[in-house]
Formats: sequence, structure tokens, C-alpha cells
Amino acid sequence: MIERNTICAISTPPGVGGVAVVRISGKEAFSIVEKIFAPAKKGLHLSEQQPYTLTYGKIFREENILDEVIVGIFRAPNSFTGEDTVEITCHGSTYIQQEILKLLIEQGCTLAAPGEFTQRAFLNAKMDLSQAEAVADLISSASAASHRLAIRQMRGGFSKELLNLRAKLLDFVSLIELELDFGEEDVEFADRTQLLELSSKIKEIIHKLVNSFSLGNAIKNGIPVVIVGETNAGKSTLLNHLLNEDKAIVSDIHGTTRDVIEDVININGISFRFIDTAGIRNTGDEIESLGIKRTFQKIDQASIVIWMIDTTHFNTEIEYIADKIVPRTKKKKLIIVFNKIDKLNEEEQSVLEEEFLPHIPAERIFLSAKFKRNTEVLEKALLKAANLPDITEDDVVVTNMRHYEALSKALGAIERAEEGLKDGIPADLVSQDIRECMHYLGEITGEISTDEILGNVFKNFCIGK
Amino acid sequence: MIERNTICAISTPPGVGGVAVVRISGKEAFSIVEKIFAPAKKGLHLSEQQPYTLTYGKIFREENILDEVIVGIFRAPNSFTGEDTVEITCHGSTYIQQEILKLLIEQGCTLAAPGEFTQRAFLNAKMDLSQAEAVADLISSASAASHRLAIRQMRGGFSKELLNLRAKLLDFVSLIELELDFGEEDVEFADRTQLLELSSKIKEIIHKLVNSFSLGNAIKNGIPVVIVGETNAGKSTLLNHLLNEDKAIVSDIHGTTRDVIEDVININGISFRFIDTAGIRNTGDEIESLGIKRTFQKIDQASIVIWMIDTTHFNTEIEYIADKIVPRTKKKKLIIVFNKIDKLNEEEQSVLEEEFLPHIPAERIFLSAKFKRNTEVLEKALLKAANLPDITEDDVVVTNMRHYEALSKALGAIERAEEGLKDGIPADLVSQDIRECMHYLGEITGEISTDEILGNVFKNFCIGK
Repeated sequence: MIERNTICAISTPPGVGGVAVVRISGKEAFSIVEKIFAPAKKGLHLSEQQPYTLTYGKIFREENILDEVIVGIFRAPNSFTGEDTVEITCHGSTYIQQEILKLLIEQGCTLAAPGEFTQRAFLNAKMDLSQAEAVADLISSASAASHRLAIRQMRGGFSKELLNLRAKLLDFVSLIELELDFGEEDVEFADRTQLLELSSKIKEIIHKLVNSFSLGNAIKNGIPVVIVGETNAGKSTLLNHLLNEDKAIVSDIHGTTRDVIEDVININGISFRFIDTAGIRNTGDEIESLGIKRTFQKIDQASIVIWMIDTTHFNTEIEYIADKIVPRTKKKKLIIVFNKIDKLNEEEQSVLEEEFLPHIPAERIFLSAKFKRNTEVLEKALLKAANLPDITEDDVVVTNMRHYEALSKALGAIERAEEGLKDGIPADLVSQDIRECMHYLGEITGEISTDEILGNVFKNFCIGK
Repeated sequence: MIERNTICAISTPPGVGGVAVVRISGKEAFSIVEKIFAPAKKGLHLSEQQPYTLTYGKIFREENILDEVIVGIFRAPNSFTGEDTVEITCHGSTYIQQEILKLLIEQGCTLAAPGEFTQRAFLNAKMDLSQAEAVADLISSASAASHRLAIRQMRGGFSKELLNLRAKLLDFVSLIELELDFGEEDVEFADRTQLLELSSKIKEIIHKLVNSFSLGNAIKNGIPVVIVGETNAGKSTLLNHLLNEDKAIVSDIHGTTRDVIEDVININGISFRFIDTAGIRNTGDEIESLGIKRTFQKIDQASIVIWMIDTTHFNTEIEYIADKIVPRTKKKKLIIVFNKIDKLNEEEQSVLEEEFLPHIPAERIFLSAKFKRNTEVLEKALLKAANLPDITEDDVVVTNMRHYEALSKALGAIERAEEGLKDGIPADLVSQDIRECMHYLGEITGEISTDEILGNVFKNFCIGK
């Protein structure tokens, strides 16, 4: 094990609270904390305390009491990082939090980099790299579905799948390389048909994983939804109403893996990410060139398009949208929302239902955003349009772009190996492709890792984790 | 002890972080947590664990793992609240935090009201009311000086002073009431001179405490500083520069006892609260009537006035300020700041130094806010103008408006008692005044408390403390 310095950071969310937790990890954790902490019980020494215990006492700055705190201790290797770890629970004043950090740094601690505690857990083999990444996903998870995927990955579900794959690839490569050893004798130890079967099986598994990313990404980052319509169609009223249900949870997402906060709405544990469009305000050349281009781009990013119509106010924009925008939603789910039904009588509604652009295939919903009528019907329609498959306990779903890229490269390599087998190219070349495939899978779990990979993985973590 | 329900809340600051702490307190704390938590070690039961220990395990929602957590336990009466208490350290995802709260509430917990944990600590006689209030002050403290006062009060410095006072008052009242018991015999047990001496001593102590409030308030809420000057004098550049040094700490203050965030700057551990003025833009009737009136009000609130002058741009506003505003700063400390000295040569500076309104008594400082030249001189001048006395370990300083009000009433009562003694009014009337004095002191520590008092004290706490 490499000698590493002792790190410290505030592990709780930034700001003022009842309590805050300062975490210290490394070889000097106990000796550094002992310099600033005096247990309330006389004669007691922190470093002699049992692991998994809490000690009450005071933090001192010279002779002055800085705070009364509770100190928890963990001993290597039985801690999150695998190192000696101390957790100080102090009063949640930002002043006190900062001062404790200052004291620790004065005594020899280094301020932890983002994700450095988790990085140490990885480096000390407490978890593999995909599990470490799942820790960040877990912290930023804001819906039941994304939480479920993150916790499964953190608990090693994905790693196990990769381990199985690797075992199969090792079988494969050892069969081929055995052949290689006896190459001059021109022996074919491995039955090529058997090898082809094996490679096809591996390809299929990797292919399935690669394909699961679109689902995993939708769950992790939310299903992209775009609303088109005029500015006064009631779009923001509707969004605010849908948002309110979950605002407390949604508005707190910051600082972890997402940089930009969008309107994310949770419906039955599924996140929908609303992509902002400027709204169509006017017909004319100006819009033609600028606004519509942007709206086109946003529709391309979405998988669900809501077309919101003010039923009290039909005008030329409606035709414009029908002509120019609706055709671009062909491969998406289109939901037409007729708003302001409070101002509509039954007859008018049934006329709209039957006669409004009947040739356009779309779900049609009548609601009042302002009076919150029928908005639950829209929620159901969104869930139906999302069309997420049930994920069973055994399904492995890829949620991470880095994993997706590595798996795509692994897929390319195994496909080349398969081609090679079919074309009867020499075993050593086939073997090279399989080793490459293994290399990419190793990058996911961190068996193969470079400083660059680690840097990219941990830079998006929050400090203190 | 009254039977109270078991409460739960997130005790760490709101938002996403590495970890968060959910606190549960009450008789059912262990049994409720056991329903959702499974220790990693088989056969282990949370309720059988030793106090002050940490147990690693999983939180379950039905069969699904919600999170891997560390659970700390405290047993009544050896906890913050004096009740059985469990602290769950979970991953700092807002989703997980909310879900754990939901699970606890489903199992019978009640969501804690603001400050309810501390209120229970008070009700269970773990601390008196002034100490409970100090917990909130400690959490919102943002400077070394306010932190020092809060921690001293939390550790009982103020309570001890009040206990002393109460003992003296009890002496007093028992002497007088002894006389009362034998009233009909017309005996004077207590020497009236001795009684007068005692009342004067008590009065002096209370008087000193009442007077300490202006200091305590300045330390707790910051010394009010107002900057007057034209809009382009460089006021915001200066403020931003001064703020930057401490922005991380200052900008995080929210949600506890302060409702409005002002520009608070820490200099050498002392807070200066900058009161915003609109800046003087124009001379004329309009300003006369509106702007200046408001500036007058703000000057009245301040104890330090900075007059900021753009040395490259002298105009009629300068005369205006000199005539109308400066006279209102007579009882304040006035600092004249000549800005933009980078555009001034030495001669020009010395002319200004000697000839600019020499009759106005004020500190004169030459600086460049933009190029950060000499701003440290202004900081020193502010510290000097603040003129805070050194507070020794034994000094008790009142920082709380509620305490100030109660002490003022107690002072009135003891003054009436003293008057009564001097005027030779009957002992029973004097006794009544002394009992009133004791009553008000009792309100501070909470010996005398009503639901209204408790409600007012704890409503400003954050949830989770």
C-alpha cells in the first residue's frame, strides 16, 4: 500500500444545519484529532477507544472551546476508505465547520479532493471503480428508479456481470492461446465451432449491456420531454403544477454529477426532464431562421413531445406547428394537450376531439393547468409514453457514459474476434482482439486504470465523499 | 416526565452531500429504527447494542435495500435530548434522506418541529432555556466573537450569573418576608440600611447586564455600518473586495435565526453589517423628499458611517452630503474614504488631506477599491471605530433580545423595590416587587415558562436541532 497523507473534509451538505460531519481519513487520523479533541471523560484516550464507538468531548483551539462534539472512530481496514477514519459530528454552524477544518489542516491534514474518500476506498480495494461511481450516482439520485439502479451497482450487481464476462473471455483466450503455444505443430486444440459459439455468446451479453444504456440513461438523467406551443398556452403553469408535487426534492439537486438544473419531475418514481423551448410567439421570417431551428434541435433531443394548445385561442401558429413541427416528432411519442378546458363546453370538446387534425397520430388530453383538472391524466400518459420495461432484480442496466463507451469498444473488439474466427485468421490475431475486449471491460471495474481515468471519474464527486 | 412521541428529522444542512444524518429521539427510537434497519452482522439487535456505539447495516423498504448506513445509539438520559436517541448516517442524496424520513413516519415517528430536539433537552432538564437559545446562536454564529459569546452562554456562563442573582434576591425576599410574618407585632427584623445595600447591589448587577446588550447585539448581529456617497464612488467595488475574503462563510448563513441576508464582513473575528443605501444620484427636490429621508433613517441605524468620495469627480453632491448628512453623524464614527487614489498624485492627495472640510472630525483614508490599495487601512479603521472592549472569560454579555427585555423588566422591578425601601412603604409591597424581579429572571432560564415563551424561543430554530 502506498503511503498516503491524512485527508479531511466536511462530508455533510454545505450550509447551516443542526449538525455537520467532518471526516478525517488516513494513518494520522487518530493522532491528529487527539491534538484538538479532549474527551469529556478524564483519562480517556481516543486512540485507545474501541472501533465503532462514539466519544463525547470538546474541540479546543488553544485554550478556547470551539465546540462540543461527538467523535466516531473506525479502524483500518474496517472503514469506508479502508483506512483509520474519524468522524466529528459538530454543531452545524458554517463558522465552526470551517474552524475545525482549519485546525485539522494546521495539525497536518490535507483538504480532501472531490471524491477522495471514495477514491481511497477504490485504491484500498474496498470496492471496484464501477461501485465507486455508483456512490456518486446514489448521492445524486433523485427518483426511485435511478436510486434502485445506483444501489444495485454500488452493491456489485454490475461488477458481478462483468466478472462473469471476464471469466468467459479468459476461457476463450486460454483455449486460443493454448493453440498458439503449439502453433508450429499446426495443431488446432480448440474446436473453431466451439470458439465461435463462445464468442457469439459473449457478444450477445455485451450487446445487451450496450443497448441497456438508453434505458439506464433515461432513468438516471430523466426521460427528455419537450413542450411546444405558444407562449400563452399555459406551459409554465402546467410545469409549476407538476413540479410542486416534488419540488422539495428536485430543487435540491446540485453540486454532484449534474451541472445544470432543469425542471425534473418525478412521476411514480420515474424522472421526466423537461427541456425548455422558447415558445412560439410569432410567425414570420425571424422565427423561421432562428427560433424554429432551435426548437427543432430540442425536439431531436426529446423522446416525448407535448404539444400544448390554448383552446380559447386558435391562430396561425397552430397551423405552423402542425406543418413544420409535428412531422419532426414522427419517431417520438406525441401528446397533444388541449389546455383551458374550463372555458370549453362539452360539445366544443367533442368537436376538437374528433376533428382536430385527426390524421396526426397522438394521444389527446383535455385539461386545465390553472385549475389542476385532469393533470393526472397527463401524468399517466407520460408514464405510458415513457414505456419503461420492468427491471427485474437480475437485470443489469448500464447508466454511466464511461461504461457505455468502454462496452461499445469491447463490443467492437469481440466482433472483430468473431469475424477473425469466421475468416480463419491466425489465432494470435484473434487473441489480440479478445485481450482488447478484456482490457475495456477492465477499465470499467478499474482493474485497468490510469490517472486520467481516475481523474475523470472522481472530479464529478462532491467534496467530503 | 410527560409521555412524548418519538420524533425524527434530518439534522444536517438541507441539500445533497456526501452523507446526511437523520436523528430520532423518544421512547420508541430503538424499536422504530429496528423495523427498518438490519445490522450487517447476523444475530445482532440494535436495542441490545451498547450506548455510544456505531452499527453498520442496511435500511430496508419492504424487501428492497434503500441504503447502507451507520447507526449511532444514545441511551436516556445520556443523550442530547435526554431521551433514547438514534442517529442514522446515510448517503447524502435528498431522495434517500426523504425516503428514510418517510419510512420512520410510517413506523410511528412524528416529524420534529423546528428546535424540538433542543426543546426536549430543555424539558428534560439537560439545559436551561438560555442555554437552549445559545445552541441556536452557536449554529448561526458566523464570526469568532459571536461564536465565543454563544459557546459561553451554552456552557452556562450566563445561567450561573442569573443563579447568583436569584440567590441574592432570595436572601432579600426572605429577610423581608420574615418581617412580614411578624407584621402585626410591628417588628423590623431586617435592617433597612442592609436591605437597601443589597437591593442596590442587585440593581447594579442587572444594570450592567442590561447595558451589555448593545455590545452583545453588535457582536451577534454585526456592527451596523452605512456607506454614503454617489453611486459611482466605488462603493460596491469596495464591498465586494471586503466581502471576498470571507464570502464562503458569510454567504452560507440562512435558515436559522436571521431572515434577511445582508452584506456581513468579518474583520479579525468581528462582524460588520453593511446597511445598503441607494447612493446619492442627483440633487433636486426629488431626492430631498424621498432618497435623503431614507438615507437619514439608515444613518440612524448605523454606528459607523463611511463617506465615500470619488476623488476624480467632485461635484455638488459632495457639498450636499457635507451640509445635510454629515451633521447627522455627530454621535457616530465617521470615516471619510477618498477612493481612486490611483488617479491622484502625491500633491493632490496632500491637498485633500489638509484642505478637505478640515472642520469635520473624521478619520480620513485614501485608497483604491479597484486596485485593492490601502483597503487594509480601512479595515483597521473599522476595527478602531467599532471600539469593542476586550471581553474577559468572566464577563457576561447579553446577546438575546428576549433576555434584554426580561432583564429590563427585572431592573424596573428592583428599582421600584429600592424606591419603596427608601420611602418606607410596607414590606409586603416591597416583597411583591422583588418577587416580580425574580419572575423575570426566571423567564430567562426557563424556570418560569409558558407555551408562548417556548413557542417564541424555538420557532426560530432550524428543523433537526
